[in-house]
Amino acid sequence: MSFREGPRYASGCTGSAVWSQRVSLKAGHSNPALDRRATLRDDLQQIDYLGSWPVSCEKNPLSAHFELHIEQGRRLENEKKTIGVVDSVQGIRWYKVIVRGEQAHAGSTTVADRADAVVATSKFIVFLESFAIETGVYATVGVVEVQNGSSNVVSGSTYFTVDLRHPNEDLLDQVEESVIEEMNQLSTAKNNRVTFAMEKVWHSPAVTFTSKAIQCVAQAGCRVVGPKAVMGPMISYAGHDSALVSSAEVPTAMIFVPSRDGLSHCPDEWTSKEDW
Amino acid sequence: MSFREGPRYASGCTGSAVWSQRVSLKAGHSNPALDRRATLRDDLQQIDYLGSWPVSCEKNPLSAHFELHIEQGRRLENEKKTIGVVDSVQGIRWYKVIVRGEQAHAGSTTVADRADAVVATSKFIVFLESFAIETGVYATVGVVEVQNGSSNVVSGSTYFTVDLRHPNEDLLDQVEESVIEEMNQLSTAKNNRVTFAMEKVWHSPAVTFTSKAIQCVAQAGCRVVGPKAVMGPMISYAGHDSALVSSAEVPTAMIFVPSRDGLSHCPDEWTSKEDW
Repeated sequence: MSFREGPRYASGCTGSAVWSQRVSLKAGHSNPALDRRATLRDDLQQIDYLGSWPVSCEKNPLSAHFELHIEQGRRLENEKKTIGVVDSVQGIRWYKVIVRGEQAHAGSTTVADRADAVVATSKFIVFLESFAIETGVYATVGVVEVQNGSSNVVSGSTYFTVDLRHPNEDLLDQVEESVIEEMNQLSTAKNNRVTFAMEKVWHSPAVTFTSKAIQCVAQAGCRVVGPKAVMGPMISYAGHDSALVSSAEVPTAMIFVPSRDGLSHCPDEWTSKEDW
Repeated sequence: MSFREGPRYASGCTGSAVWSQRVSLKAGHSNPALDRRATLRDDLQQIDYLGSWPVSCEKNPLSAHFELHIEQGRRLENEKKTIGVVDSVQGIRWYKVIVRGEQAHAGSTTVADRADAVVATSKFIVFLESFAIETGVYATVGVVEVQNGSSNVVSGSTYFTVDLRHPNEDLLDQVEESVIEEMNQLSTAKNNRVTFAMEKVWHSPAVTFTSKAIQCVAQAGCRVVGPKAVMGPMISYAGHDSALVSSAEVPTAMIFVPSRDGLSHCPDEWTSKEDW
């Protein structure tokens, strides 16, 4: 079981991010593949998909935007509903962090004297968990890699990811600031012999969709499957193109259908034909 | 720069560990290669090195044991000495740990409700650092791997290594007990939804060599390079076959020669011909 997203590029929803002018065309194009061997632009060119149509909400506007998606959760399934009326998407921010310390011998460098990247990373993760519980944000470190890790070597460098989510963008701004502050404090405590370099790789803003568009979905849902099979309004925990399109002031809403066991982005993902 | 040891097998000094009867022949033979495709016995058979001579300090005894080795540190180099008289080796214990939690969605499982393997691992590492500073042991987590890690997934499992070293075996016993206790506490705090499975993969005991053998090395060193170029008695921070041989009550000592920049087990390892 896995929930992997963005298998080839670090960020997601790049098309809608550029279209809504939250990310420049140049930045979108230079999105590197995870193996660092090509950019998104290289890949688009390779398959002849680069195109000439303007990727712009101004030059190529939409009058409304409705997105059909599997729920990627169990709320519909648990309540035996077949249509979910989505009224909002929580904000999602992805970061990648590189920690640099000093590699040292496990048997001759006293623990107090070390600038151990694994220990610094662990301290940050422990902080993030308690801070997330305190503030109510969703905070996740899902990837941790020790560079040239060896059981008898004090690690000199780690890489890890941070995923922050909440419906309130202001709160996410505050959490981001506190995260940076904590990294600085951890670094200062070791006379800056441990450093954190954090980069934001994706930002899907928290949005509330347009009431008229939400009503359209609710009414159409009730007409097609009956009011008892409709759930909502409900929030989307995952990020979607709709969040970006909506941020360009396009009337937007989303329709969820059940996903078995809440599974998503994995071979076991499944929605029955009747629900689709 | 790296200090990797045991490139093909998890444990080291297997021959001397079996010979000194600290590890059974069967256990030594079943030592798996890191790729899990063969055991040490398979590999010995493959190159026709299995042999029939008894690997036993009783059936195949030694009257004395002297081991020449590079220092794997900078003490000789820093003091411009060319011979180190080693009188002791600190105890080394290697463990591998598998943490199991519950994989969950980063955007819909509240942080307090999670059984996050990365967070549990981090809490253990933070504990180990402060406990090591308190007790004076050398404790290192040099490898951390998140199984099926993904930036937007709460991790369900991690693997990490622990390296403990100290000249006092009793203290190492106590630290080992406290480590297990901390793991149990971290597990209990999450209603056992997070579990730690720890396995000791190598144990090189702390030893003090035989005074007569130490004197032999000191006298011979003084005769060959002169007393000013001899350092000692000094401890070995790394594990060696001599520690195991000595534990079988064989008169043992070691001779260190300088290793440039303290580097060891890497392509830059170097000892000049004059020092060898």
